[in-house]
Amino acid sequence: MKELVEIGRKAKKAARDLAILNTEEKNRVLSMVADLLEEQSEGILDANGKDLVLGREMGLKGAIIDRLTLSGERIKGVAEGLREIVQLEDPIGEILEMKKRPNGLLIGKKRVPLGVVGVIYESRPNVTADVAALCLKTGNACILRGGKEAFLSNRAIVGVFHRALESCGLDPHMVQLVQDTSRESAMAMMKLNEYLDILIPRGGFGLIQAVVQNSTVPVIETGVGNCHVYIDEYADLEMAVSIVHNAKTHRPGVCNAAESLLVHENVAAKVLPAIGKELGKSGVEIRGDETTCSLIPEAKQATEEDWGTEYLDLIISSKVVGSVAEAVKHINQYGSMHSESIVTENYSNAQYFLDRVDAAAVYVNASTRFTDGFEFGYGAEIGISTQKLHARGPMGLKELTTSKYVIYGSGQIRP
Amino acid sequence: MKELVEIGRKAKKAARDLAILNTEEKNRVLSMVADLLEEQSEGILDANGKDLVLGREMGLKGAIIDRLTLSGERIKGVAEGLREIVQLEDPIGEILEMKKRPNGLLIGKKRVPLGVVGVIYESRPNVTADVAALCLKTGNACILRGGKEAFLSNRAIVGVFHRALESCGLDPHMVQLVQDTSRESAMAMMKLNEYLDILIPRGGFGLIQAVVQNSTVPVIETGVGNCHVYIDEYADLEMAVSIVHNAKTHRPGVCNAAESLLVHENVAAKVLPAIGKELGKSGVEIRGDETTCSLIPEAKQATEEDWGTEYLDLIISSKVVGSVAEAVKHINQYGSMHSESIVTENYSNAQYFLDRVDAAAVYVNASTRFTDGFEFGYGAEIGISTQKLHARGPMGLKELTTSKYVIYGSGQIRP
Repeated sequence: MKELVEIGRKAKKAARDLAILNTEEKNRVLSMVADLLEEQSEGILDANGKDLVLGREMGLKGAIIDRLTLSGERIKGVAEGLREIVQLEDPIGEILEMKKRPNGLLIGKKRVPLGVVGVIYESRPNVTADVAALCLKTGNACILRGGKEAFLSNRAIVGVFHRALESCGLDPHMVQLVQDTSRESAMAMMKLNEYLDILIPRGGFGLIQAVVQNSTVPVIETGVGNCHVYIDEYADLEMAVSIVHNAKTHRPGVCNAAESLLVHENVAAKVLPAIGKELGKSGVEIRGDETTCSLIPEAKQATEEDWGTEYLDLIISSKVVGSVAEAVKHINQYGSMHSESIVTENYSNAQYFLDRVDAAAVYVNASTRFTDGFEFGYGAEIGISTQKLHARGPMGLKELTTSKYVIYGSGQIRP
Repeated sequence: MKELVEIGRKAKKAARDLAILNTEEKNRVLSMVADLLEEQSEGILDANGKDLVLGREMGLKGAIIDRLTLSGERIKGVAEGLREIVQLEDPIGEILEMKKRPNGLLIGKKRVPLGVVGVIYESRPNVTADVAALCLKTGNACILRGGKEAFLSNRAIVGVFHRALESCGLDPHMVQLVQDTSRESAMAMMKLNEYLDILIPRGGFGLIQAVVQNSTVPVIETGVGNCHVYIDEYADLEMAVSIVHNAKTHRPGVCNAAESLLVHENVAAKVLPAIGKELGKSGVEIRGDETTCSLIPEAKQATEEDWGTEYLDLIISSKVVGSVAEAVKHINQYGSMHSESIVTENYSNAQYFLDRVDAAAVYVNASTRFTDGFEFGYGAEIGISTQKLHARGPMGLKELTTSKYVIYGSGQIRP
């Protein structure tokens, strides 16, 4: 696709200049974008209003319309987010290690930008500003391919970045929006190996799988979370009820929400009725195995399919197990390697769970809801990786970098 | 493909056990493999002899036959390599960072194995032992898919690993060889996302590109090196001649050998004739731009294609440039982001080159031939990554690992 090759070529060129900007120069652009977003919010809201009209005409439903909708308040929030990114430490240029080899070569490993970052995402226009800001801060040019339904909003926001970049005498192609929002442009991005160093899909399961299956550009898989809470036989049961309730109901539509509950048989009779009551108050449907159903009369019978399902809703599956080993085996079989938690006061069981559960984040005595770049103290997040290559778990600024060996010699040759 | 799904399933199961072995247990297996390789070298040489007979019948040529051939000496070398891996520090279990958050959560980032590593490679049977040993040391199960021509040799070597694993009471499926060496089995491996965490192609350009283009499993791209030496106007010219000669002729068939020479116009007349003489003595063909050809009468005229070519042979392209900026631009345009070197005594030009050349390893005053896991002090190497995701440059043990967040709470829930 011609448009994308042209965008890619310009991005690669812009990335070379962006990679060597110092922190002050990058922060100046970001601060200016934050100010301009607020000053020019009327224009952005205007564009967003047009998107909403078109969206409703296309028959978009409530949740999508909500994600698509901007307001003065939301734009203020985006601008504040950018000012927080300005405050974050710039990871670029850090020397991760440096050593002198026996032959006198001084070999250092330096943190550098990835180059050109591609992001394919859906209806939320705030993603446009977040991603562009995180990429700028880390010295990466970005190519943004947002959803058709948010195109005018995205264009208005990228316009603000362009004005700020130009005011600072910089190449506006450091941040580019793909104009073509057809399926073909997404496919073309997935094959843009010559220009893209990395491709991050942000959105639902379908989008992510389409990118994983079709991209020849290296991908970071994000997002799917079939998370478990396991209540051990040695759990503090009051704590267990509180953690399960929080992990399930605090924000059921996100990836770090709990979708499945495992309970040791020795405490099931004590804790499950209490959990049934607490979750019931919050309107949670429980889909349980036989024992769960015998202990919680309101519970429905779970099917095999339930163990592998990410509901993203007020539903939780529940199973009684005979040991921590059985819990771990179940999690490693059905989980999505996102966030898993054990509630226990037993040291060995806690260590067993931490060692053997294969997931990005493994918790003892805490809600799975903490798997998040902000909660982990990174100050920002571009996504949560559920793959093992490059980055695992919440991805902050450092995860948008790579390294380069810088080697200082004095005439060394291989003997 | 049924065979591969079965292999994948067994590998994933074995990987869970392997991930939690301690260093002593892993080293015991590796030491035993090293001893068994020497003790049972006759059986391996026998299998290798049969591969060679079949290979010659298939019409294989000199270089491939050479790579395929084992000897008592070569097996001894492989065993010694394994004993060196035993001596290396085990990267697994290291806590990379750990911090207490304001809410009391203690969040640690722990180094863990990737899980299941797939490697597709060509004719060299020693790769079988190297890869299996590096994976075992890092707690990864591996699926090896070697070339048809080395199948019997590979099977004999993997048999030794199986005997050692079984003697230690471990699951032999920690190391598996794909029996089917058809193109279909390689393609099936590239789609084995459910079981493979990473796929590394080791071999020529064609193999690597086939994997990059077809794999849905995350790939580490390795190997292609169109490396440059740039002789700056402030170079120590004697050093420059020595570095160019070493980088080109020390081992011309490998990826870190220099393929292209760039010379500042102010020193071209002085240094190019000397280089022509030195390279000429080693039988190197020079393909130069107009100025090079005017200064080295033996040089042939270079075409546009030459600037992008990895010869892997006693050939080098040569171009005269007007500045360090022009040299960097040329390298970023035609290079393969592997290894690049500047020869200069000028501080600012050295920094300019280090900052702006986009490559895995950037050198000042040294031969590009040092880009290598052993030369960098890693004690081992599974390949040299030329991509930016996960690993860049020589990949040692640490590059065969990922991380997992381990989080110690005391009942925390998201407020």
